[in-house]
Amino acid sequence: MPQAFSSLRINPDRMLDSFTQLAAIGATAGGGVDRPTFSEAHLAARRWFREHIEQNGFEFRADGAGNHSAFLSCGDSSAPTLILGSHLDSVPNGGRFDGALGVIAALEVLKTVRENRISLNVNLEAMDFTDEEGTLVGLLGSAALAGHLRLENLQNPRGGQERLVEGMKRAGLSDESMLSAARTKESLAGYLELHIEQGKRLERAGVNIGIVTAIVGIWSYRLSFIGKADHAGTTTMEDRRDASLGAGAFTLAARELVMRDFSNCVVNVGKMEFAPGAFNIVPARVDVSLEFRSPDEDEFNRLDKALLELAARESSRFGLELKMEFLGRHSPSLMDDKVRAAFAAACDDLGLSHMPLSSGAGHDGQSLADLCPVGMIFVPSVDGASHSPREFTKWEDCVNGANVLLQAALRLGSG
Amino acid sequence: MPQAFSSLRINPDRMLDSFTQLAAIGATAGGGVDRPTFSEAHLAARRWFREHIEQNGFEFRADGAGNHSAFLSCGDSSAPTLILGSHLDSVPNGGRFDGALGVIAALEVLKTVRENRISLNVNLEAMDFTDEEGTLVGLLGSAALAGHLRLENLQNPRGGQERLVEGMKRAGLSDESMLSAARTKESLAGYLELHIEQGKRLERAGVNIGIVTAIVGIWSYRLSFIGKADHAGTTTMEDRRDASLGAGAFTLAARELVMRDFSNCVVNVGKMEFAPGAFNIVPARVDVSLEFRSPDEDEFNRLDKALLELAARESSRFGLELKMEFLGRHSPSLMDDKVRAAFAAACDDLGLSHMPLSSGAGHDGQSLADLCPVGMIFVPSVDGASHSPREFTKWEDCVNGANVLLQAALRLGSG
Repeated sequence: MPQAFSSLRINPDRMLDSFTQLAAIGATAGGGVDRPTFSEAHLAARRWFREHIEQNGFEFRADGAGNHSAFLSCGDSSAPTLILGSHLDSVPNGGRFDGALGVIAALEVLKTVRENRISLNVNLEAMDFTDEEGTLVGLLGSAALAGHLRLENLQNPRGGQERLVEGMKRAGLSDESMLSAARTKESLAGYLELHIEQGKRLERAGVNIGIVTAIVGIWSYRLSFIGKADHAGTTTMEDRRDASLGAGAFTLAARELVMRDFSNCVVNVGKMEFAPGAFNIVPARVDVSLEFRSPDEDEFNRLDKALLELAARESSRFGLELKMEFLGRHSPSLMDDKVRAAFAAACDDLGLSHMPLSSGAGHDGQSLADLCPVGMIFVPSVDGASHSPREFTKWEDCVNGANVLLQAALRLGSG
Repeated sequence: MPQAFSSLRINPDRMLDSFTQLAAIGATAGGGVDRPTFSEAHLAARRWFREHIEQNGFEFRADGAGNHSAFLSCGDSSAPTLILGSHLDSVPNGGRFDGALGVIAALEVLKTVRENRISLNVNLEAMDFTDEEGTLVGLLGSAALAGHLRLENLQNPRGGQERLVEGMKRAGLSDESMLSAARTKESLAGYLELHIEQGKRLERAGVNIGIVTAIVGIWSYRLSFIGKADHAGTTTMEDRRDASLGAGAFTLAARELVMRDFSNCVVNVGKMEFAPGAFNIVPARVDVSLEFRSPDEDEFNRLDKALLELAARESSRFGLELKMEFLGRHSPSLMDDKVRAAFAAACDDLGLSHMPLSSGAGHDGQSLADLCPVGMIFVPSVDGASHSPREFTKWEDCVNGANVLLQAALRLGSG
């Protein structure tokens, strides 16, 4: 890397100005934002991004999946593109930093590179990916860009078919356009993302930057514990086949299993649905929304087996039937070694402490990991708050992250 | 009792014909009936009952609470009324016997008394009480008749305000009419009801008739276990305050407590509601629908204390807050000794075995127990099935029950 590059820094005030403008769109009383994919607030944030790109004299690009970007031609016209980015959608009643910081920092890196008239071996693109959070599908824009999206992903979306069709219509997208957004391996130099940690590890360790080693995979099931509806007054306790007992015992035992034997993993029972669901009827059926995460594929297989055995055991202990519906998986994604090294060198040059971390959350990088070199960095989340209006990262840490993103992009783009 | 009375029997074929006509109204594919209060099917059953009463030459009566009855003047015009009855509404997708058997048997008793030109010290009334099952309020017609109904019971009904208003409108009822249906103590000689057991005790014991000692009381709460919504991937297992753990542990422990220390009681967690309720968010709040029943007031107080302490303990074990909303109580109701003795004597005369039983279900008799002598008998439920299309009682047992009802009414009405 040319020596002059290492003294470059992003402009913290300019970045803060953009960040603040964006945070006002869909702002909630609690200090967060509410921008589920293709909601009015999300569409407004997308319009703001487009106008901001154009007002700043960048080329605005939009693909068939609704991914929006600023393109900076700082390399040959035939040079591959290094994408920097994140997403502008939020979970319902989410925070200001998740996604937005990465998009704003990416654009700030492009501004910094352009104003310093830097030539690289790559062109740069600052991207807002569509529907990262999964209001509709999850990692939708990045899957489309990576060529992984299939028509069936659009036909049984987790947010419901009607909502997806309606949202795509509002955003001017179609199934056909979605499936046409794939890019080639040759066109891509890599993908870098700055994100908040969404956990407490950096804060507890007092470290500036987390360099992501892997994005955990996610497996999910709907487990149905099935007993028998009976009158809750006239049926003796002994005679009941109460579905709540299997569901409750499984939830408690799954937590203990993971804490004892799978310390790299997490498990969540995010929802139970009771049927028939009345005060005076013994529950005949409880549907359990189960999700578990691991950074390692072998560990996934072991955990999967252990959890399903546990469900079967707790189910039969209470005389219940068990039905298991596998809802899908995202495999764990390893981050690229060269990108990790570039992040580490950038931190060292900037005098910032860093540590390796796995990402417990899914991110767009996992869609791209088999297509091009992918890397991510985290900055500390105060008290680990995430997907909440309480989400907060000190501005100094945001600036640190943007500078590491800049320096790593310069290294990778001139190497 | 005049000796001639003891040879009287109801007409089994005539009763079966009426029972079968009624069971066809709102019949479901599974062999049950679906007649929630003031549904089309329920209104049709009510019309059938009215026409049947009138075609059989009885006086049809309707009060302001929508209670319908056949009146038989078999005593002085100033004599008190002995009410026999039950209800024509069903739970959604319920059975043919629950309620309907008691109404049909009551009317059959009146037919038998009339055709034998019997004079008694009481007049007889065969009654269908409004909304016993609680689609709208629960024990609604009997509470109104007993003078216990208050305007506030109509303003926060368990079935929802809109549904109650709409249903009352369809049935031609109003708040004012409801509150005007009260009868006086002096006007009533008692209330007798034949019902299916809804449990397995008679079948297991091989006994013909259960003579109810008490109708259990019901207390209900909404318990809210409150933790913190967090990202289910990035929050370590140790850092979570997962509301599902308190709710699950409480459900399991409540069952153990009742089975160990409160063998006369039952407890049910019929529903849990998770918030926010997503696969990838640690549950912040679980609302638990808790109901427990006891035939004894002192035991209720002990069980209440023990359950709430348990909820507090399981809640704090997982770092959760607990909110408790008391939703109401029905006190246990003791059946009248004289009525019980009349049932027992009737069984003995008929050569039917009998045993004392508490009723785990609520019944209209509990509304009337402080107003007049109340008694109930149960006939065996095959496999204990209840509130289900599988509900079944052998016709021979139905006939036995109707004859016990007849004989007890004759004893009480001529004593």
